[in-house]
Amino acid sequence: MPFSLPKLQQLNPADARLCLDTAKVLQEYHVGGSMLLAISGGADSTALALVAAIMAPRLDLGLSAMHIDHGLRAESPEDAAFVAQLCASLHIPCEIARLDTRQIAAVRRCGLEEAGRIGRHAMLEEHRQKIGADCILLAHHRQDLCEDILMRLLRGAAWPAIAGMKRKDGRILRPFLYMAPQRLRDFLNSCSCPWREDASNASLMFLRNRLRHTVLPLLERENPSLGRNAANLRRLADVDQEFWDGYIAEALKKNPWLEDDSSGILSVTLSGELLAKLPRAARLRVYHLAMRRLNQRAFGNNLAQARTETLFSLDAAHSCGEGGRIFEFCGGIKARTSHKNVIFQTTKIFIEGKNNGSI
Amino acid sequence: MPFSLPKLQQLNPADARLCLDTAKVLQEYHVGGSMLLAISGGADSTALALVAAIMAPRLDLGLSAMHIDHGLRAESPEDAAFVAQLCASLHIPCEIARLDTRQIAAVRRCGLEEAGRIGRHAMLEEHRQKIGADCILLAHHRQDLCEDILMRLLRGAAWPAIAGMKRKDGRILRPFLYMAPQRLRDFLNSCSCPWREDASNASLMFLRNRLRHTVLPLLERENPSLGRNAANLRRLADVDQEFWDGYIAEALKKNPWLEDDSSGILSVTLSGELLAKLPRAARLRVYHLAMRRLNQRAFGNNLAQARTETLFSLDAAHSCGEGGRIFEFCGGIKARTSHKNVIFQTTKIFIEGKNNGSI
Repeated sequence: MPFSLPKLQQLNPADARLCLDTAKVLQEYHVGGSMLLAISGGADSTALALVAAIMAPRLDLGLSAMHIDHGLRAESPEDAAFVAQLCASLHIPCEIARLDTRQIAAVRRCGLEEAGRIGRHAMLEEHRQKIGADCILLAHHRQDLCEDILMRLLRGAAWPAIAGMKRKDGRILRPFLYMAPQRLRDFLNSCSCPWREDASNASLMFLRNRLRHTVLPLLERENPSLGRNAANLRRLADVDQEFWDGYIAEALKKNPWLEDDSSGILSVTLSGELLAKLPRAARLRVYHLAMRRLNQRAFGNNLAQARTETLFSLDAAHSCGEGGRIFEFCGGIKARTSHKNVIFQTTKIFIEGKNNGSI
Repeated sequence: MPFSLPKLQQLNPADARLCLDTAKVLQEYHVGGSMLLAISGGADSTALALVAAIMAPRLDLGLSAMHIDHGLRAESPEDAAFVAQLCASLHIPCEIARLDTRQIAAVRRCGLEEAGRIGRHAMLEEHRQKIGADCILLAHHRQDLCEDILMRLLRGAAWPAIAGMKRKDGRILRPFLYMAPQRLRDFLNSCSCPWREDASNASLMFLRNRLRHTVLPLLERENPSLGRNAANLRRLADVDQEFWDGYIAEALKKNPWLEDDSSGILSVTLSGELLAKLPRAARLRVYHLAMRRLNQRAFGNNLAQARTETLFSLDAAHSCGEGGRIFEFCGGIKARTSHKNVIFQTTKIFIEGKNNGSI
């Protein structure tokens, strides 16, 4: 790969703008200067590596990279070799790791897409901690965001979750999230930088790809600004999320929930006193938060999602004073109404399977 | 049309359930007993007429109907004749009216779909007032809701507007909104009740139809519960809407906005004092509300929608203390930042065109 990194001053205006816009996002979130880049070798993450490398001196960034081989495709070794070479030419230290996606899918009883996502996130976070990086950079752009919104609509997500993945989500930062993917391809082309085409991106075996290749083009034909709308929806979701986080934190300060794991089962109890003071919009969100808290403690990740319908049914049972009703959430978590309280708890099986569940 | 209305007891369980579920919705919203049914003669509104007629004695309903000929299709007179005959056999008084959709489109400078919607709503509301009905029943079901959500996503709507049309919206009630359309067809078939197929429903000239015939089937194939998810999303939107309505009403009670029309231009001024006290999530919604208020006063309808992007830009200008910035909304309404205030006002043209604009 005969490739040498251009300087910011050598870029054409559009590419320089891409680098500066990305830098602005990195600065906006004050994530610190040490960054772990997740690089598949596809166009998006290759562009991310280049932009980060170009901007590193100005922003005083310390860069590391990680490439995860999902063990699902024959050409994986070549992808890994490409990424190793790219990172070497960019002087970015790179870790190549292998994920047993099929095994995670078997243990978590989920599809390969979901298993890959869960395993990838866990591996990146582990490596981030090991090398002491401040954050993980992912190369998702606004077409990924559109796909995610549709997937969440299909899955029955609530607001603000339905607005898709966040630009900043814990230690994860997605500086390209509100940008059009074409900007990244244009940048790579004008830098004469190659990338790897992931053949599985064309496979209609995966939901995300079916949406990408069939639904999204139809919607984009109706309104080429769809991606922009998606970004705005996500921005609005962040504003609402911030509001609800503050609102609920305030309520929990006055009436804290009760965490318990004495019986070997993790639980979070929301008191009747707390629930009585909350408007319905906040109650539904406190349920969700309790469920996520449990998932975090039991499985060490924040990937749990609740179906709106289940939250509504739970709240209806609580509001009508129906005790002893049980509602199941994904991932082995259930909620039980008890007098005026609502108790979230893990089921035993998942506690025993804790370590398997964490990846 | 040899058709006689069955009694509730004569229906099969699924059809009886449809009638009882519909009755439950009518009762839930306490809309009063006098109802104006909007009937196109298509399957959905024909089913609505039947269900309403079957349940009328039990619920003590007074029914009237209105059929609006949009003047766009050659077979319009036959549709009108069908509806007249249907209503006669159901003993529902029916008004047949004609809408000049093309003229509204020309005056409002919008597409035929939008013009039809605006004109239809205005005409129904006028007739409702004339006959003193409590509410207007529309036959939208959850497939319509899905289409509406996609249309709003394309249009860049905010939350909760993006969750689609409401089940109860002012004087309008949509008792079928959370129901699957197949239930309505099944009901008509088992009652041996005919309906009119609107040939324009198949035309890909209209955005709604393109979504219906191309995008929705793809999404429904991924998850047949899409319609259910849409209904849940709309329910959640209602919960949030209720919260924000209360929150903002409270804020406006302490720091009311100022309405003015002394200069021939209608305006709504949001004071810096009001805005300073609101979190961003509430500020964005107060802007939207002010815009709708103006639209209501200028054009007598609540159909105005604001693009999220414009609201964000307006708020950014306000928050940075940038005075004198102007932001344009659809329908001839603009917002201006002025010191710490934000002023919404109509442009002159639309005031002069007020009467044309009202339909």
